[in-house]
Amino acid sequence: MIYNDTIVALATPSGAGAIAVIRLSGKEAIIIAEKHFKSVSNKRLSKQATHTIHLGHIVDGEKTIDEVLVSIFKDPNSYTGENVIEISCHGSHYIQQEIIQLFLRNGCRMATAGEFTLRAFLNGKLDLSQAEAVADLIASDNEASHQIAMQQMRGGFSSEIAKLREELLNFASLIELELDFAEEDVEFADRTQFKALVERITLVLKRLIDSFAVGNVIKNGIPVAIVGEPNVRKSTLLNALLNEERAIVSEIAGTTRDTIEDEISIGGIGFRFIDTAGIRETKDVVESIGIKKTFEKIEQAQVVIYLFDSTQFNIHRLEFKVELEKIKNKYPQKPLIVIANKIDQIDDSQIAVMQREIPEIQLLSAKTGFGVEHLTKLLLNLINTGALRNNETIITNSRHYDALIKALEEIQKVKYGLDTGLSGDLMAIDIRQALYHFGEITGEITNDDLLGNIFANFCIGK
Amino acid sequence: MIYNDTIVALATPSGAGAIAVIRLSGKEAIIIAEKHFKSVSNKRLSKQATHTIHLGHIVDGEKTIDEVLVSIFKDPNSYTGENVIEISCHGSHYIQQEIIQLFLRNGCRMATAGEFTLRAFLNGKLDLSQAEAVADLIASDNEASHQIAMQQMRGGFSSEIAKLREELLNFASLIELELDFAEEDVEFADRTQFKALVERITLVLKRLIDSFAVGNVIKNGIPVAIVGEPNVRKSTLLNALLNEERAIVSEIAGTTRDTIEDEISIGGIGFRFIDTAGIRETKDVVESIGIKKTFEKIEQAQVVIYLFDSTQFNIHRLEFKVELEKIKNKYPQKPLIVIANKIDQIDDSQIAVMQREIPEIQLLSAKTGFGVEHLTKLLLNLINTGALRNNETIITNSRHYDALIKALEEIQKVKYGLDTGLSGDLMAIDIRQALYHFGEITGEITNDDLLGNIFANFCIGK
Repeated sequence: MIYNDTIVALATPSGAGAIAVIRLSGKEAIIIAEKHFKSVSNKRLSKQATHTIHLGHIVDGEKTIDEVLVSIFKDPNSYTGENVIEISCHGSHYIQQEIIQLFLRNGCRMATAGEFTLRAFLNGKLDLSQAEAVADLIASDNEASHQIAMQQMRGGFSSEIAKLREELLNFASLIELELDFAEEDVEFADRTQFKALVERITLVLKRLIDSFAVGNVIKNGIPVAIVGEPNVRKSTLLNALLNEERAIVSEIAGTTRDTIEDEISIGGIGFRFIDTAGIRETKDVVESIGIKKTFEKIEQAQVVIYLFDSTQFNIHRLEFKVELEKIKNKYPQKPLIVIANKIDQIDDSQIAVMQREIPEIQLLSAKTGFGVEHLTKLLLNLINTGALRNNETIITNSRHYDALIKALEEIQKVKYGLDTGLSGDLMAIDIRQALYHFGEITGEITNDDLLGNIFANFCIGK
Repeated sequence: MIYNDTIVALATPSGAGAIAVIRLSGKEAIIIAEKHFKSVSNKRLSKQATHTIHLGHIVDGEKTIDEVLVSIFKDPNSYTGENVIEISCHGSHYIQQEIIQLFLRNGCRMATAGEFTLRAFLNGKLDLSQAEAVADLIASDNEASHQIAMQQMRGGFSSEIAKLREELLNFASLIELELDFAEEDVEFADRTQFKALVERITLVLKRLIDSFAVGNVIKNGIPVAIVGEPNVRKSTLLNALLNEERAIVSEIAGTTRDTIEDEISIGGIGFRFIDTAGIRETKDVVESIGIKKTFEKIEQAQVVIYLFDSTQFNIHRLEFKVELEKIKNKYPQKPLIVIANKIDQIDDSQIAVMQREIPEIQLLSAKTGFGVEHLTKLLLNLINTGALRNNETIITNSRHYDALIKALEEIQKVKYGLDTGLSGDLMAIDIRQALYHFGEITGEITNDDLLGNIFANFCIGK
């Protein structure tokens, strides 16, 4: 699966900017670039050292396409491990296309999605979980997801898996060696040590598997549904949290009919706030559809914020409590934060009444910002960020999660085998299976379909 | 006006991509970058040669922000002429922002629009018209505008102006020298030679000024209004020309109520095709507004295409001819191309009838593509592309145009002075004025307001 052809693609985002970077990778990359590059000092690219930059023009016969800087990276000292040329050109769409077309006509083919990273993997520059982290890194939009992707890309997770795999492989070899001397009934593999290793692997696997719950929410953001009566300034709260005016704020009750989603980063964690149309009883058809949607959104959310208008508490206390009960009964497991909004508009005695009737109430004024910070703390407390703080490995990839689950199953079979004195040949099969699943994560075990699936999610140029 | 501070900005288009490039420029650029860069081989950036690339991590204290490639360009061998660092990082918005914020907190300030190019100008790396060409180059979206911007950026126009300026300056000095010896009544400046020079300058200025008409349409694209009855497949023609489905094609008459604009490059020239709602008589209010808009669009267009349905010719010939006359009477100067569409659906005798009644008719089938190529040729013939083909300098910038007009006025005064034997001291004033306007183009003469206006149109990062 080693490629002999040279690929080309735009590496920077499409659109106009000051500069754009076009990347070539492959055996012939430098030779091909040289044919269409006129250095200002008449230098030949192929004679230049790796990691050097050269000013000149990209030419197509007589025609000068652009003044560019060309960077040279020589096999194996490049991202892909192949010869790589990076052309930094002026950022017009026209120039980008002309240069790419020029190379497509002259010995390059268009890179497929993620092909630069795929080649890096195939050339041993990074393992499969590191390659996957590259895509995660580019997609990460808050500190937590960035930190996890960064750690994974730098090989934190891979080396943890690789270490366990190596120790396990060692025991596998010893046990398989015993099989060769089966008639002599020897034990090369110290069963006590092996048991300790299996225990240790079990612990690590369990920790990694557990981390997926955190990792998954960090990667995808934590959905929080904001539910309440129309006109309780849900949108204003959303804006206070978002610190910008993305939701439509209106005085007309029932304005927010469509759910509006927006994501903000609180303490480095991404929260996706879902504003809903509320769940008040209504005969209006459009409103009814809104209520149905609200329940759907609560279903999908991991946290629910119930927001009510404290100036309306005296008149609507019963409705509020009915609605609150409705949510609690329908979703008993879902974390629920109850907020009385507009407390800047009521007096202390009214606040006392509310707090007596709904003890879990949180006081807030979306207008003045009172309570907004406390709310963000409440939200953060709902997430177990211990692992994140302790810089432990966190799994965010469901493919890794699946492989770890399967590896754990096999390790538990091995453990059972050890406990029950299972014969070495049977135990060896389970160990090999566990090793197989470890190898799936880092890419020692792979196949075209798997690689195809992984790299299809990359963009072209990465 | 030399800057001592170091600026930072994103140089690639915003948005997610495989990579992004962040650029620092200023005296301290390398020192500042070094503080936050951990080379994989523990190299210090400030000890490295210019035009070299280094792999490592951008770090903020304990925190690693990204694995990056850092390129070094040392004063004066850089775009700006200052020390420049380019950081090629992973293309996530989060990473881009983190790195820029890091440098903003540590000795850099955000670059203003076009500041990198402004500094390049102030440091003498390029003159003002070259600097302006950088923005034009990035904005160019077809071969002709790209070619003109490229030529201008490489100094073709500047050197032409600079050469004239130098010769004129030479004569100015001689004439001013005469003033010092006024009492002796000598002539250092050969009047015959000077007259020849003034003639030559006049010719060059006139040619450059004339080229603006072509340059302007090339830069901005040539607007072509497509007018016709509803349901004559204007949208289909537009699509045949555009070679892609951008306009809404529908069988329902009057569908295209809003004008749709799209630009395509024909023979390297950008044409903006403006589909209109037609001008048929109607009592429908919406249609009437459409007709009003159609006339507005014809007003703005440089070319009009009148398109009619040849299958409807027998029934509607009168209306077609009335409409055609209406356009001809209203816009007698505007180039008009009359096209009979759907000729795949009529027979030869019908074609003969049409050609007899409307001699200037062009036959076309938007469906089969017949006549589309001929139409593109007709359109190209309307533009004087001689200058473009002969690689002559073409002016596209209205600031240059204004300066050239003013320079020509002064040169004509000088010529008049020479013809009428005006005294040297008065002629010297006119020559100095002409030199002033030449200097405005290349930037020898400039001021903060002018520079502000020019670079405000650049993007940040350029």
